[in-house]
Amino acid sequence: MATARFIYDNPYKCSDVYYATKFLAPDPLVYFEFRGKKYIAVDVLEYGRAKKEAKVDKVLLAQNYTKNIEIRKGFVIEVMDVIFKKFGIKTLEVHPNFPFALAEQFAKLKYRVVSGKSPFFPERSQKNTYEKNAIIESQKATFKMIGLVEKILIESKIRGNRIYHKNKLLTSEMLKEAVLIEALKRDYMMTTGLIISCGNHTVDPHDDGEGFILPHKPIIVDIFPKSQKTNYCGDATRTFCKGKAPLALQKLYSTVKKAQEIGLSLIKAGINGRTIHGSITKYFDSLGYNTGKIKGAYQGFIHGTGHGLGLEVHDGEPTIGALDCVLKVGHVVSVEPGLYYRNIGGVRIEDIVYVTKTGCEILGHYPKKFEIL
Amino acid sequence: MATARFIYDNPYKCSDVYYATKFLAPDPLVYFEFRGKKYIAVDVLEYGRAKKEAKVDKVLLAQNYTKNIEIRKGFVIEVMDVIFKKFGIKTLEVHPNFPFALAEQFAKLKYRVVSGKSPFFPERSQKNTYEKNAIIESQKATFKMIGLVEKILIESKIRGNRIYHKNKLLTSEMLKEAVLIEALKRDYMMTTGLIISCGNHTVDPHDDGEGFILPHKPIIVDIFPKSQKTNYCGDATRTFCKGKAPLALQKLYSTVKKAQEIGLSLIKAGINGRTIHGSITKYFDSLGYNTGKIKGAYQGFIHGTGHGLGLEVHDGEPTIGALDCVLKVGHVVSVEPGLYYRNIGGVRIEDIVYVTKTGCEILGHYPKKFEIL
Repeated sequence: MATARFIYDNPYKCSDVYYATKFLAPDPLVYFEFRGKKYIAVDVLEYGRAKKEAKVDKVLLAQNYTKNIEIRKGFVIEVMDVIFKKFGIKTLEVHPNFPFALAEQFAKLKYRVVSGKSPFFPERSQKNTYEKNAIIESQKATFKMIGLVEKILIESKIRGNRIYHKNKLLTSEMLKEAVLIEALKRDYMMTTGLIISCGNHTVDPHDDGEGFILPHKPIIVDIFPKSQKTNYCGDATRTFCKGKAPLALQKLYSTVKKAQEIGLSLIKAGINGRTIHGSITKYFDSLGYNTGKIKGAYQGFIHGTGHGLGLEVHDGEPTIGALDCVLKVGHVVSVEPGLYYRNIGGVRIEDIVYVTKTGCEILGHYPKKFEIL
Repeated sequence: MATARFIYDNPYKCSDVYYATKFLAPDPLVYFEFRGKKYIAVDVLEYGRAKKEAKVDKVLLAQNYTKNIEIRKGFVIEVMDVIFKKFGIKTLEVHPNFPFALAEQFAKLKYRVVSGKSPFFPERSQKNTYEKNAIIESQKATFKMIGLVEKILIESKIRGNRIYHKNKLLTSEMLKEAVLIEALKRDYMMTTGLIISCGNHTVDPHDDGEGFILPHKPIIVDIFPKSQKTNYCGDATRTFCKGKAPLALQKLYSTVKKAQEIGLSLIKAGINGRTIHGSITKYFDSLGYNTGKIKGAYQGFIHGTGHGLGLEVHDGEPTIGALDCVLKVGHVVSVEPGLYYRNIGGVRIEDIVYVTKTGCEILGHYPKKFEIL
């Protein structure tokens, strides 16, 4: 066969590279598998560290295959052609995200280039004990951060149409800064930001929030930090309301809370995510919480129920949504129904779970308290 | 022709998407150009925000071309096939990093898929006034962070073989935390970490440092934050020594400082980066600071002189190194020679410059003080 499985990507940008090597470097990395062995090729700048840190069978030093000492750009083609020829490799089964231009260049050098399956490492979605524990640790930290926001909301006072914390007008920016500092001290990084939105901002699930935190309005706190130590993520959402919530908002909250319970009760190995998502949608519909274009804007349950989580906040697999995806033992997935209506606001509640044969374990625990009076 | 230029990538991971759209979203985004107009296609989750924020001619709502409301995964192929057919597009000139598997699928649908040139937006390397000012702002913030480290080193006291700050043993971790909090307050993010290394750690340019900051040893402070406001980066390095430096280290420092001056004096539009890198290498060699394998380890000037900088810390273009790259007006590039020897330590000094017709402007200014007594 003489086929190598081959990735060329930045481990900070493509978690599959990190997954395969346990090595982080700021520039793209060559990784390949051949005859059951794992290799990376790096230049002198990374060689020392790679030898120490990379969990592969062999670290190849690019300079042994080229004359240049600085080979960043011409690296892959020139060096890998020499290496692949030496190994007798003729077919490259590349990562689905392999750069198209590079694939073309290898094809010109007479390699047969075929796309590897997606996901490239199917086993990545089923977490082992180390990974599960790493996620639990990250999820605990996530809840500490949500707890910090709740604490500030508890300490705050409503005056008129504003909220004050220690006599300062409370804003989304202040809360985010407090969370980010907490994250930092715990050695977590927000690789794609965080959401602390209030009022009208909550109607758009990806609006990360800005400006005043207002009383009697929904406050969505969605935090998804990545551990700098293990590189595994946490992800959780709570919706709060400082002061009494209007009745429609109270109802929205209890509906979403119940929907999450429905989702959690259905999860187990063998079930199709689509079934779970369908049950929640049906539940919402049955109460008149419809989804679709309302007065020109998409409203209702306008996102999936859950996404896989691991080295990335949004891992490719599994999903709980409109697409078929059968859950397996060891899958870690979020359960986060939400409802978003212009005239009421947005509510989302999210936990992550570990799928078992008979159900699921919720990873990390945090109360679901809505109104903070 | 009926050719569209086409990108499918995550704007957090591929700066070209952000460059083209000025829109950030946590999931991959469809961007294409056709007959001089720019389009993005998003699903309902991003539609509202995209309409407000994306700097494109038209935001297409995926749901207008498919029945599913959640289309994350099947999105691209299904939706884009409908859209491309409607526009009469037959050839896809894809981004060099376009996912290979996706290209194959479009090819199966009878599109001609060809690779666009690298860089996909050549104009991105030549900064306009807005971009230059954004980088200056980021670089000023970078120097504030380096200044904070220097201030802590000034305030610290040597006791025996250790350094104490406010009676606490000074470590790399403490300094990093201080810098990260400062970054946060200024609304900057360290997307690929930061380097505060000391002693033996400095010999490996990409070792980010850990443990005690030691007296009489080199301390490399290399900080490269990205503005959350403009998304442009800064990047600067200073090397310090708390207490008197050994003579060999003093000499190493003054040599690298002089080398940087040589580099800065040579930069102007029209010069080949390779010439500059060659001059610095020659200068080092002339003083006996050779580069290569010494006692089994690569030592000396083991990296390039500089890299392009903009939306990413390491932009693809330009480079000042072993490869040909002619500098152009508007290029922003780092000038960061360094020397690394096991028996002395590592020294690196880095500034970034804006290339002009006759020379360069150094962006941001910070003194080069080595010993902190």
